[in-house]
Amino acid sequence: MSSYPPTLLRLIKQFARLPGVGEKTATRLALHILDISRQEAASLSQSILDVKGKIKLCSVCFGLADTDSCKICTDPGRANGVLCVVEETDDLMALEKSGAFKGRYHVLHGALSPLNGIGPDDLKIKELVDRIRKEGIKEVILANNTDVEGEATASYLAKLLASFPVSVTRIASGIPMGCDIKYTDQVTLKRAMEGRRGV
Amino acid sequence: MSSYPPTLLRLIKQFARLPGVGEKTATRLALHILDISRQEAASLSQSILDVKGKIKLCSVCFGLADTDSCKICTDPGRANGVLCVVEETDDLMALEKSGAFKGRYHVLHGALSPLNGIGPDDLKIKELVDRIRKEGIKEVILANNTDVEGEATASYLAKLLASFPVSVTRIASGIPMGCDIKYTDQVTLKRAMEGRRGV
Repeated sequence: MSSYPPTLLRLIKQFARLPGVGEKTATRLALHILDISRQEAASLSQSILDVKGKIKLCSVCFGLADTDSCKICTDPGRANGVLCVVEETDDLMALEKSGAFKGRYHVLHGALSPLNGIGPDDLKIKELVDRIRKEGIKEVILANNTDVEGEATASYLAKLLASFPVSVTRIASGIPMGCDIKYTDQVTLKRAMEGRRGV
Repeated sequence: MSSYPPTLLRLIKQFARLPGVGEKTATRLALHILDISRQEAASLSQSILDVKGKIKLCSVCFGLADTDSCKICTDPGRANGVLCVVEETDDLMALEKSGAFKGRYHVLHGALSPLNGIGPDDLKIKELVDRIRKEGIKEVILANNTDVEGEATASYLAKLLASFPVSVTRIASGIPMGCDIKYTDQVTLKRAMEGRRGV
């Protein structure tokens, strides 16, 4: 390592701080930067600055945006009145990729976790209630994670929204596609049984 | 993917062009950039530019340097008179890391490969001969790779340097450490036999 020129060594160390990048990969990446054109390197360098400088939270759904409102919130082709509540922006992206939902989103930015000191005021719950009031929402789909915190948050929201004139649904829990029933855990099997539907 | 803001999408695409980085890893890296401090991002961005702008080939050994001569060539503590010839700068780094060599290096920047149109004039062979003449080199260690091109280049250099008053050696070829003889290929076994030493 120490025989690399200091300039290169600094980039290697910085790459190695990225998640999932060890010293070997970092070295490979840094040497790759040496090989690409000056223009490409300048463009990568600028993009890193741009992401830090321009990306902020959408003022409506709190997803990622580089304008005041994100592409989904401003898309006239998407259904109004149906709101899908997710914990993080990554969850939003995963749902978008699946193409399973064509309404609007609301990102909570976390889940309730009393042990870690995260209460309702730390999440975008007040903003969710405001949107339900203002946007004429008919259905709220709770797409919180199915872990302990996510389930607790979904329960909390279901209770909170019970007094509102909206139907509150929770995404289905059950056996994922491509799975063997014999290898599926008990809680998932129980959920899958409870959620059974006529065919 | 397309639901990410364009600024973020551009960084994801640029990360995905790095070697060994797919779309998923690129997304993870780009989202990590969102999380780190503005200062850290600026520093990474600057380092990429610096590597492109400052790193060049050492004028003596043709290894990587951010000054005219690299750290190894200017190190007064290293042995003069012994020159280790390698194909690429990575080979130099690997040897340095092993700590097995304390002399000077010479990087050829490739290997002879007539099929790909790479002849002696495309490598730093003329420069090697010049150094042997000027620097009073006593031994040239050929640390070319042991593939077809590397072996051919080593043979070529051995013939070329035969008329010079230097001893030309080739790094030993044999069974790597930690290997089972029964799993070792025939050519390596043959080389290991030929290169046997008294114990």
